[in-house]
Amino acid sequence: MNENLNLHKHISSQFNDDLERVKTSVLAMGGLVEAQINDSITALIEGDSRLAQKVRDKERAINSMELDIDAECATILALRQPAASDLRMLLAALKSITDIERMGDEAKHIASFALKLSEDGEAGAGYEEFEKIGKRVRKMTSDAFDSFARFDVELARSVVNQDRGVDSAYHAATEKLLSKISDHPENLAQDMNVMWSLRSLERIGDHCINIAEYVIYLVEGDDVRHSGSKDKK
Amino acid sequence: MNENLNLHKHISSQFNDDLERVKTSVLAMGGLVEAQINDSITALIEGDSRLAQKVRDKERAINSMELDIDAECATILALRQPAASDLRMLLAALKSITDIERMGDEAKHIASFALKLSEDGEAGAGYEEFEKIGKRVRKMTSDAFDSFARFDVELARSVVNQDRGVDSAYHAATEKLLSKISDHPENLAQDMNVMWSLRSLERIGDHCINIAEYVIYLVEGDDVRHSGSKDKK
Repeated sequence: MNENLNLHKHISSQFNDDLERVKTSVLAMGGLVEAQINDSITALIEGDSRLAQKVRDKERAINSMELDIDAECATILALRQPAASDLRMLLAALKSITDIERMGDEAKHIASFALKLSEDGEAGAGYEEFEKIGKRVRKMTSDAFDSFARFDVELARSVVNQDRGVDSAYHAATEKLLSKISDHPENLAQDMNVMWSLRSLERIGDHCINIAEYVIYLVEGDDVRHSGSKDKK
Repeated sequence: MNENLNLHKHISSQFNDDLERVKTSVLAMGGLVEAQINDSITALIEGDSRLAQKVRDKERAINSMELDIDAECATILALRQPAASDLRMLLAALKSITDIERMGDEAKHIASFALKLSEDGEAGAGYEEFEKIGKRVRKMTSDAFDSFARFDVELARSVVNQDRGVDSAYHAATEKLLSKISDHPENLAQDMNVMWSLRSLERIGDHCINIAEYVIYLVEGDDVRHSGSKDKK
């Protein structure tokens, strides 16, 4: 075994550590955002203003994680010369964290609506639908991050498929809420808070699709985005 | 002048061409999306269903531009070893096109609402506010792309500042629309289409901020994201 080989091995193993660290950081950020989503949903359903406030307070930590991972990826790109799947992994990480951060934004929006609802009084409808869609979106979120953790293309594809159910449930829920508002517009402000929260859930589902599509790209090298599956109205 | 120097120069000039091509592609995509935004706003205000349909039809072209630019950036990253400002330029391009594509999505949403309004009948209110906010958002969009074209940090900062005006106008408009709906809920479905369209405008403004912040990052090397300016509620 000569010096060069050792050196090469060392560099390569250091590089693996770099990539592994990025992956771990993305998953840690994902875990935090998943908790934010769960807490914001619970806060709205249970009218828990303390939990809602907690979600809002935590957003700053997520933002700073995004910046750290971005900087880490840029450093690796500059210092190493990643190619093929290593490069795809870094690009997938760079794109995913933007979506993860925006999922965190949506959780903060839901938490803000939950706060308003706990201050101004409950809405007259929509909680049941919000809870059901929330459950689906939580599953999508969890599956999206798992697919990234395990580079699991099948799971990633199932995330894309799950979104259809979320979309149709979302449309049914907003229709129902609109017809309730139409008949009883007296709690409009509160009902609109539930409406916006439903919209945030639907957006979180869209971000899950994006992440799942980055996983498919990273594993297969194919860019499946805009192939029809995610064409949202 | 020796061979190596020539070679180096050649490689470097080719690399410059690559970077310039990416920049041109991003701006071409931006120009298309800017037209989509303008057309969708006009379609809604004038109830022009043909124009709305045109916006919806063009979305596919934008999606494929995003994939092409993404692939081009990945190739450059793999084949060259960009560092410092070249690397930042590529990363800014990669991130910007995600925002540009989503701005295109929002234009498509507005076009869909415009179509519904032209089919189901006009909403009872909100057009004037929509037009005013639309004008501001068009300016933000145009400035955001100009700041990218000229790597103009001052202009980028002005985009970030302009968003405050959009946000407060948006909140005032939704409040006004809600109070109209509360008093006259008989055109709820139509009024909601205007409400969602206002929301799409506000989102486009948020994407403009993201692009402006990538420009600042690319020129100054500082990551100004999440520094407070864009903290949206």
